[in-house]
Amino acid sequence: MTLRVNGARLWATLMETARIGATPDGGLCRLALSDEDAAVRAWLTAQCEALGGLVTLDPMGSLFARFEGVDPAIAPIAMGSHLDTQPTGGKFDGVLGVLAALEVVRTLREAGRTTRHALVLVDWTNEEGARFAPAMVASGVFAGAFAQHEALAAADANGITLGAELGRHGWALEAQAPAMGAYFELHIEQGPVLEQAAVQIGVVTGVQGIVWLDVTVRGASRHAGTTPMAARQDPVQAAASMAMAVDRLGRADAKARSTIGQMHSAPGARNTVADWVRFSVDLRHPEADRLAVMEGELCRMLLGLAAEAGCTVKVENVWRSAPVAFDAACLAAVRGAAASLGLSQVDIVSGAGHDAVYVSRVVPTAMIFVPCKGGISHHPAEAITPAQAEDGANVLLQTVLCYD
Amino acid sequence: MTLRVNGARLWATLMETARIGATPDGGLCRLALSDEDAAVRAWLTAQCEALGGLVTLDPMGSLFARFEGVDPAIAPIAMGSHLDTQPTGGKFDGVLGVLAALEVVRTLREAGRTTRHALVLVDWTNEEGARFAPAMVASGVFAGAFAQHEALAAADANGITLGAELGRHGWALEAQAPAMGAYFELHIEQGPVLEQAAVQIGVVTGVQGIVWLDVTVRGASRHAGTTPMAARQDPVQAAASMAMAVDRLGRADAKARSTIGQMHSAPGARNTVADWVRFSVDLRHPEADRLAVMEGELCRMLLGLAAEAGCTVKVENVWRSAPVAFDAACLAAVRGAAASLGLSQVDIVSGAGHDAVYVSRVVPTAMIFVPCKGGISHHPAEAITPAQAEDGANVLLQTVLCYD
Repeated sequence: MTLRVNGARLWATLMETARIGATPDGGLCRLALSDEDAAVRAWLTAQCEALGGLVTLDPMGSLFARFEGVDPAIAPIAMGSHLDTQPTGGKFDGVLGVLAALEVVRTLREAGRTTRHALVLVDWTNEEGARFAPAMVASGVFAGAFAQHEALAAADANGITLGAELGRHGWALEAQAPAMGAYFELHIEQGPVLEQAAVQIGVVTGVQGIVWLDVTVRGASRHAGTTPMAARQDPVQAAASMAMAVDRLGRADAKARSTIGQMHSAPGARNTVADWVRFSVDLRHPEADRLAVMEGELCRMLLGLAAEAGCTVKVENVWRSAPVAFDAACLAAVRGAAASLGLSQVDIVSGAGHDAVYVSRVVPTAMIFVPCKGGISHHPAEAITPAQAEDGANVLLQTVLCYD
Repeated sequence: MTLRVNGARLWATLMETARIGATPDGGLCRLALSDEDAAVRAWLTAQCEALGGLVTLDPMGSLFARFEGVDPAIAPIAMGSHLDTQPTGGKFDGVLGVLAALEVVRTLREAGRTTRHALVLVDWTNEEGARFAPAMVASGVFAGAFAQHEALAAADANGITLGAELGRHGWALEAQAPAMGAYFELHIEQGPVLEQAAVQIGVVTGVQGIVWLDVTVRGASRHAGTTPMAARQDPVQAAASMAMAVDRLGRADAKARSTIGQMHSAPGARNTVADWVRFSVDLRHPEADRLAVMEGELCRMLLGLAAEAGCTVKVENVWRSAPVAFDAACLAAVRGAAASLGLSQVDIVSGAGHDAVYVSRVVPTAMIFVPCKGGISHHPAEAITPAQAEDGANVLLQTVLCYD
């Protein structure tokens, strides 16, 4: 019979740790390396040690609990996520991945099962980036994406550095993180796709590539009363047609996303045609070549629409992140696990960033998604059902066993 | 032979007074009741007194120079505008109307012509509103649109009140302004219509009615990466389609204007679908019933477009100014004057506010427009030719004679 986690115990653990940093509205405020974060880590350390785990911290303070396997010579299978939250975060973003990993170890111990690989439970430091920028900084240092000394120097809004907070807690930091043979991260989807499709498990095949652009449209500031409509070079109207073009671009391909989150006009007098408008564009696609085509097509459209309106347009690239494809063998393990449990599954591309994105640069990696209510995340209303948490943990358990 | 003004003298006068408050870029900074404004008024007073005029100031400091006519029993014909400017204003906005009135008096004196009506030259205080809000405050008090004590209490950015500035200059203020039988104001168009149509004189039949709306579109703030396009309630996209509807509304009627000068999204994160967007709408039409229809049509469209985008919309009326129609007999005088001079003329509606708007509430009024370069105003680049100034002054002269 297929081994299964104890869903009630997992849920009780989720609810127990949700008291550490709880906010009155049912959410969590457990900023990275705060006293609350240190408290939940102390709790996690005690739980892991009680199960025979060896807990170490790497130079960024990420927590690793190693549970020996039969063969100490092969690199361990790692699983985890993060326990820090947004200032007005929910109870499951990140937390589910760490506590499900704990439940996997508890279940294996209880069943007397020892894996061939050692298992490593991971809690990455400062995934959210809400306290110290950038986000996913510790997994980024782990993967060589960021310089460690720069990451330790990152300061919060009060000028306290990440390195200083590590020192304040008085933790013993190892010279480096343990080696990993594979990494699996269970996470809530943070989007509405699985819930709307009524699918239990998302097999996360990779992460969208992202292009951030700043678009500035310049027109001619003129009197709103004396300037006939036909004599205008109105950047607000040009930006409106551009915004609709951005939207069409995202809708033309089911895998694409296109978003204008910021828009404002200047000088911003209600009785004056604006001088200029600036807006942001966030373009995403899981395929690098399609993303490049979208960006090129957008620039062509922006130039055409600006000319039609008698305006000029400047497009600046602010940031670019290449798409990530997760490891085929790891994905096969996830698919096999979900199938063995009789859970419905669908391939999905992650729209949000995760520690797994950086980890995948240096370790074979895959992610598992479970649905969350209304796709809402980074909000006290973030919610999953006990059954969804249990399904995710069972898939994580079977994935580890399958990969082992 | 038709009496004509001395165009060279008018231009020299314009250039002479343009030295008072001149800015290095060729513009003027002559804020209401500043030392520069007081200096140009002292100059004007001397000129008027040299021509036999009696100069008085009303309680708001507006300057009236009365030149007696044959019949002292009938209410005088007034003409003028304002000598104050925007902080980065040009040399002609307002100034032309006052100095052309002076040139009219000089021409009549020189020709030995005495009119039946007394003539009153007017320089209205603080037309621009750049120093003390609101604009056109002195003509507004004259017409009973504002309470005098409130207008005198209006403070500039340094907290100095209009009343205190009047006191500082030590001027003798009369209890009230002189009566007027008619009022004529020559002004630059401040728009491109006359120049583009290559017409010399605009017969200003009235002033557009104005409706100012604040529109707030609420959507649902969601993650730009995880939220499929079809699952969005994006207020930026709703606002873009609304902006285009506002533009179509203005273009559907040659007399209409519609402008969105202000637009901004919130919370304004580039990787988050916005929560809400706020924008301003400035609707104008010279006919009250058409303006009301435009406003109703717009509200209907906004509600429909919000619903299509899964958003809600709130429309708030910020301000409303009814259209003004100038006096038929005064307009007939202007038309006759331009025709007698062989100048091309066209009826035009003023898109900007002027002292004549308030004055027309209590005195039969009309305005005369001359073209300005590129329709540019409130800017150092504001420009007219000596011939345009002369044409305007000749029409003002003949209008006064015709009305007389």
